[in-house]
Amino acid sequence: MAVYTDVSDDELAAFVAAYDIGDPIAFKGIAEGVSNSNFFLQTTKARFILTVYEARAPREDLPFFVGLMDHLAQSGFACPLPIRRRDGAALTDIAGKPAALVSYLDGISVKRPNAAHCREAGRALALLHKHGDGFRMVRPNPLSVAGWRPLAEASGVRADRISPGLSGRIAQEVAFHEANWPAGLPTGIVHADFFPDNVFFIGAKCSGVIDFYFAANDFLAYDLAIALNAWCFEADASFNLTKGQALLAGYEDIRQLEDSEVAALPLLARGAALRFLLTRTVDFLDVPVGALVKPHDPIPYDRRLAVHQRIAKASEYGLQR
Amino acid sequence: MAVYTDVSDDELAAFVAAYDIGDPIAFKGIAEGVSNSNFFLQTTKARFILTVYEARAPREDLPFFVGLMDHLAQSGFACPLPIRRRDGAALTDIAGKPAALVSYLDGISVKRPNAAHCREAGRALALLHKHGDGFRMVRPNPLSVAGWRPLAEASGVRADRISPGLSGRIAQEVAFHEANWPAGLPTGIVHADFFPDNVFFIGAKCSGVIDFYFAANDFLAYDLAIALNAWCFEADASFNLTKGQALLAGYEDIRQLEDSEVAALPLLARGAALRFLLTRTVDFLDVPVGALVKPHDPIPYDRRLAVHQRIAKASEYGLQR
Repeated sequence: MAVYTDVSDDELAAFVAAYDIGDPIAFKGIAEGVSNSNFFLQTTKARFILTVYEARAPREDLPFFVGLMDHLAQSGFACPLPIRRRDGAALTDIAGKPAALVSYLDGISVKRPNAAHCREAGRALALLHKHGDGFRMVRPNPLSVAGWRPLAEASGVRADRISPGLSGRIAQEVAFHEANWPAGLPTGIVHADFFPDNVFFIGAKCSGVIDFYFAANDFLAYDLAIALNAWCFEADASFNLTKGQALLAGYEDIRQLEDSEVAALPLLARGAALRFLLTRTVDFLDVPVGALVKPHDPIPYDRRLAVHQRIAKASEYGLQR
Repeated sequence: MAVYTDVSDDELAAFVAAYDIGDPIAFKGIAEGVSNSNFFLQTTKARFILTVYEARAPREDLPFFVGLMDHLAQSGFACPLPIRRRDGAALTDIAGKPAALVSYLDGISVKRPNAAHCREAGRALALLHKHGDGFRMVRPNPLSVAGWRPLAEASGVRADRISPGLSGRIAQEVAFHEANWPAGLPTGIVHADFFPDNVFFIGAKCSGVIDFYFAANDFLAYDLAIALNAWCFEADASFNLTKGQALLAGYEDIRQLEDSEVAALPLLARGAALRFLLTRTVDFLDVPVGALVKPHDPIPYDRRLAVHQRIAKASEYGLQR
């Protein structure tokens, strides 16, 4: 949670003038998102979120992310709608950085989802997969199996500073997944960061999904495997079967998993845990002195890995077939 | 700018239930305020700001701050109105910390005020002084002259790490003000932190004032002297006479300064610069490792001091009499 970019009065005025959105009456940095700066903008016409993309955001991919939100929102999926400037552009720049203005989405993310939230989340993820279907831009997922070895090498033996033996466990897992990663599963648009902070609720109902800045083309079931890791573990890294059942049932309310996906789910869930273990380990070791952001703790994903290694069948995650 | 407190789902639900404010539809940490955590809360009925008071906030003074906002808002001054719980309390607690819910104020603070903003700011400050008149609680200002020596001692020679000779300049100034601080000036409620970030505008008009957590009873003209320091200096610490004229004229549009205040203004402005130099020096030296907040740079106030030392009459600040 951070705001890295200062937007001056003149920059704000020039930015707003490029849109047909009325006059600003509120503009506040919000503590949301770890790698970009986000601002709440209220005008005389509506409420918006302005996202300023910081150095870590891959600029060449911004049209994909913004185009995807546009496609999803236009097709009726509850996510922020990119607002176009008077000249038609959906991307702009502010304070010398690329930026996008999107519609404001009501809702509150839950910090500790219960099973009912997990069911809603599963439904939302499957809806996202269905609505992503007609989107024609393509972005290979840089954080799927082919991207893991470079990340493991970036941390190397330094990972042992975080936990004894971690570098060895990582190396073993990377080799395991390179040898065993499934092929031929159904692919499509994946959110790839479907964590509770990115899913909004109003009361018990999911009101929308945000933060598409990891979205890519990949196995749909890998996205579900990420969600299992993100939604269905307790703080002590134990797996909550009731939440797993709810998430998977919610998903299958909307999209039935194919047999190949069911068979691959344990492997995908284990790979998903490794993916977050890897990026968190690198971020944890490379956090710059004076950084305004606390890095995520990698250890909970080290522990999830151990859980997944003891799971053989999708039914153990709660898939009811 | 920071959010120090995590509010859990259950805490939010219990908190909201204590008020008659409808159901929450948005809850976001906002990057505003350096010593407390602030959240934007939107419910089915209205928008609010929730402030959670962190360790630095003097708890025994919270009733004064909240009572003052209540008094000012009820009397028609544009500032946040504390919202009372169903049981009548204006202070509550959340996540084990004291907190207050206040109405949301539209408007945007300006980062680089121009002379027109300064005129509006001067008017707003004088209005605050007028509206504060009937408030009956009392809080002596801990950051007036009597509080400066302890602050100077807290930084001591360590101040020289920030700038060579700074500790000597501070010691000299403290002694000077202890010997020369005026007495008998008109007193009342002062904001005591009337900086541009605490004054909201919609277009060219001031829409309200926030952040009353330094408010106290003190010389009214000392508050104006703080505002001169905060609004009328350029980034290079040069004094902008046009802005000074505007701020002072705006103030006198609403409240005429007495002769004793006019005579004391250069001394008060110099003291106000010292007051911010002192707290910023202490904060700068004592910033904890891993802090999420960048401390304010004390040096601009060291330079302001040098400016004030060469000013003898209020007319040099732009007072037109």
